[in-house]
Amino acid sequence: MSRARLAPLVANELGVLEAVMWSHGPSRDALAAQLGFSRTRANALVAGLIDEGWLDEVGPQASSGGRRAETLQLHRGLGVLLGVDLGATGVEVAVLAPDLQVLARHAQPVDVREGPGVVFTLIRTVMRRLLTQLKLKARDVLGIGIGVPGPVDFASGQLVEPPLMPLWDRYSIRDDLRAEYEAPVWVDNDVNLMALGELWRLRRTLSNFLVIKIGTGIGCGIVCHGEVYRGANGSAGDVGHICVDPAGPRCRCGNLGCVEAMAAGPAIARMGVEAAQAGQSEWLANALSERSELRPEDIGNASRHGDAAANAIVQRSGALVGQMLASVVNFFNPSHVFIGGGVTGIGPLFLASLRQSVYQRSLALSTRHLEIGLSPLGADAGVIGAGVLALQEVLRQSVSSKRERVAA
Amino acid sequence: MSRARLAPLVANELGVLEAVMWSHGPSRDALAAQLGFSRTRANALVAGLIDEGWLDEVGPQASSGGRRAETLQLHRGLGVLLGVDLGATGVEVAVLAPDLQVLARHAQPVDVREGPGVVFTLIRTVMRRLLTQLKLKARDVLGIGIGVPGPVDFASGQLVEPPLMPLWDRYSIRDDLRAEYEAPVWVDNDVNLMALGELWRLRRTLSNFLVIKIGTGIGCGIVCHGEVYRGANGSAGDVGHICVDPAGPRCRCGNLGCVEAMAAGPAIARMGVEAAQAGQSEWLANALSERSELRPEDIGNASRHGDAAANAIVQRSGALVGQMLASVVNFFNPSHVFIGGGVTGIGPLFLASLRQSVYQRSLALSTRHLEIGLSPLGADAGVIGAGVLALQEVLRQSVSSKRERVAA
Repeated sequence: MSRARLAPLVANELGVLEAVMWSHGPSRDALAAQLGFSRTRANALVAGLIDEGWLDEVGPQASSGGRRAETLQLHRGLGVLLGVDLGATGVEVAVLAPDLQVLARHAQPVDVREGPGVVFTLIRTVMRRLLTQLKLKARDVLGIGIGVPGPVDFASGQLVEPPLMPLWDRYSIRDDLRAEYEAPVWVDNDVNLMALGELWRLRRTLSNFLVIKIGTGIGCGIVCHGEVYRGANGSAGDVGHICVDPAGPRCRCGNLGCVEAMAAGPAIARMGVEAAQAGQSEWLANALSERSELRPEDIGNASRHGDAAANAIVQRSGALVGQMLASVVNFFNPSHVFIGGGVTGIGPLFLASLRQSVYQRSLALSTRHLEIGLSPLGADAGVIGAGVLALQEVLRQSVSSKRERVAA
Repeated sequence: MSRARLAPLVANELGVLEAVMWSHGPSRDALAAQLGFSRTRANALVAGLIDEGWLDEVGPQASSGGRRAETLQLHRGLGVLLGVDLGATGVEVAVLAPDLQVLARHAQPVDVREGPGVVFTLIRTVMRRLLTQLKLKARDVLGIGIGVPGPVDFASGQLVEPPLMPLWDRYSIRDDLRAEYEAPVWVDNDVNLMALGELWRLRRTLSNFLVIKIGTGIGCGIVCHGEVYRGANGSAGDVGHICVDPAGPRCRCGNLGCVEAMAAGPAIARMGVEAAQAGQSEWLANALSERSELRPEDIGNASRHGDAAANAIVQRSGALVGQMLASVVNFFNPSHVFIGGGVTGIGPLFLASLRQSVYQRSLALSTRHLEIGLSPLGADAGVIGAGVLALQEVLRQSVSSKRERVAA
C-alpha cells in the first residue's frame, strides 16, 4: 500500500494506533483497558482501522483461558520507515517495519566535517541499496527520521550552529531528501533519538531517565515525565562542556576543563599517544608506530590485554565522565542512566570507574535506586529512535490532514 | 461555608476550577475557549459551580465592546488555605484566600535543628494567631500546604533523611496537625513550592524554568514540561552538593568542594570572619567585635558601603553559584532562572557575578535567550506555592471522593 492511499484518522483512532505502537502487541481488551474505552467502542475502532489498512492481526495472544484474543500490530503493508543515526565519524542507516523491527541495516565510517553534500550523497546511496535489497521502492517509505550530532531546531529540522560540523549550519536535510522521497522527514539530535529509542524499548515503563552518548563528543538524552525533553532552545543535554576541572586544559569551546575535552574519544587517543611516547606502554608504542596515530579502540585493546598505562587512561576517562554525571544525577535524580556511544567499547573498566565516581559524588538519596548500565539497544538505539520519531509524526500528521480538510 | 458542605465534583467541573485557579479571573467565554468546550456547555458548568458555592462572579471584565462579561474566581466562602514555608533558620506562615491572595502573614526566626516538636508548637501557635486576626476558625481551613528544607516523600508527606534536620527523619507532619485541623495537609520540599508559586504567578506561560534558593543550603526547584519535576526519588534539584572545585574544602556530606560548602550562607559568614581576623576589613572587624559572630547580612552591609574585602566575598560566592548553575544550564537549557533565598539580600554584586559566571561557562545556544533574575514573588514564593499545592490537592480530592461514592 502506498502512502497516498492511507485513510485519514480521527483523534480516537490516533489514540488506538499510538497505544499499539507503544505496546507489546496488545489485544483488543488490553487496548480498551488502557484507553478507558468500553470493549464495544474499542472493537469498533479496531475493526475500522483493520478495514482501512492501519492495523493487522498477527496471531493469538498467550492463553489466559477461553478463546484466545488476537494480537494487534501496525500493518506491515503501511510501508517502511527509514532511520538514520549520523555520528561525527560514522553513520548507520536502517529500514524498519511499522512495528519498529529492523528489516535491514548498514553502518559505515563517514566524517561529518566533509559537509552535508558529501555525507547525504552517501546516505541516499545507502538508503537506495537497502530498499533494493528488500525489493522496495521510494514510494514504499512512510516516513524518515534522522539523528544528527548537533543542536537541532526541531520545527524546521535544521542544525543550529553545530560545533562539531560548522558546514551544516542551517542546512535543510528535508530539501535534500525531497527530490527522492515524498515521505515526511524529521530531524533531531542523535542522543534525543537514542533516548526515544530506549523509551520505546521500555514501552514507557520508566518516566525519568538519561541516555549518555560518549564518542567524539559527549551528549545526553533526557526523558522527563515520560517524554523526551529538548529544553527551551533544543540544546538540553549538552553536558559535554560541563567543567570537571577548573585547572584542566582548554576546550575548543574556549573554556577550561570541559569533560568532553578531557574524557571523550579524542582525549583518550591523545592520552594514549602521550603514554606511548613517554615509554609507559610497549603495546601502545607498537600500535602507534604501525599507524602513526591511535584510536580509542587501541587503548581499549591494550587495556583488555592488561596494559597498565591503558588501564589508567580508561579509568581516568570513566571517572571524569562519572564526575560530570554526579552533578547531573544530583540535579535530575533519574531512575536509570544508560550509557552508549563508541567509547563504551573500550572495556568494562570504563563503566566500573564511571559508576564508582557517580556513587561516590552523588547524594545517597539520589543514588539509592539509581541504575547505571550500558544502553540495552546498543548501537541500534539511534536508528530505532529515528524510526519511532518518524512513525509518531506520520501518525500525528494523518490526523491533522483530515482536520484541515474538515475545516476547509 | 465549611468544608463538609462542599458538593463533590465531576471531572469536567474539576477542569473548570483548575482553569480558573490558573487564570487571571477569566470570563465564561475565555474558559470555554481554553477548555475546548462550547459556550453553552461552559455556561452550564459555571452555573452549576456557582450554585454549589465553588465559583463566584467578582465584577465585569475590561470592556471589549458589547455587554461586559463577568470575571470568575474561586469563591472566597470556600474557606482559606494555610501556607507554611519552613527554612533552616526561619519560618513564614500565611493565610491565603482561594484566589491565592495573601490575607495575613507572619515570619519569624526558628532553628529547625531543635526538632519537629518545638518547631510545630511554634507553627501551630502562629497559625491560630493569624486565623484569630482574620476572625476565622480551624474549620474554615480548606487545606494546608507546607514546604520544608529537605527531601520529602511526597505521598506520605514525610521527610526522608534530611541532612540539615536529622531529628525530622520520617516525622509525620500530617499527624501533628490532625488534632487541630480536619483539612488535608500536603508537604513538599521548600524549593519545589517556590517553583510552584512562580509557575502560578506566571499562569503557566513558561514551561521550563528553574528556581534556585540560596540560604543556609542551596537547592533548586525544577519546572519541566509545565509541571514541577521531583525526580525518581523526590530528590531532584539537590544541587548544593555539585562539585565546583575538586581541590575545595570538605563538605558535611563528605565530599570535597561542594558549592554549598563554598558559597552558601555559612561559607559567606566564615569568609567574613577570616577577612576580619586577617585585618582586611575594618568594617567586618568592628561588626565581629560587637557580636562575636558574623551573619551573611553583615558582609552584605559592608559590601554596600564599599568594603573591598566584603565585595570580594560576595563576588566569589556569586561566581561559585554561577559555576554550578552553568553546568545545570548546559544540561537543562531552561528559559529562565529565578534566584531566591536569604543570600540574595547581600547585594547586587552577588547576582552580577553569578550571571557573569553562567554566561561565560554555558554554551551560547543555551544562554542566547536565558534570563537570570531575582524571584519575582521574593520571600512570598514559598507560602504562595504552599497555597497552590494545598488548593490543587483539595480540588483533586473533591473529585476522587465522588468517584469512590459512585463506585461504592
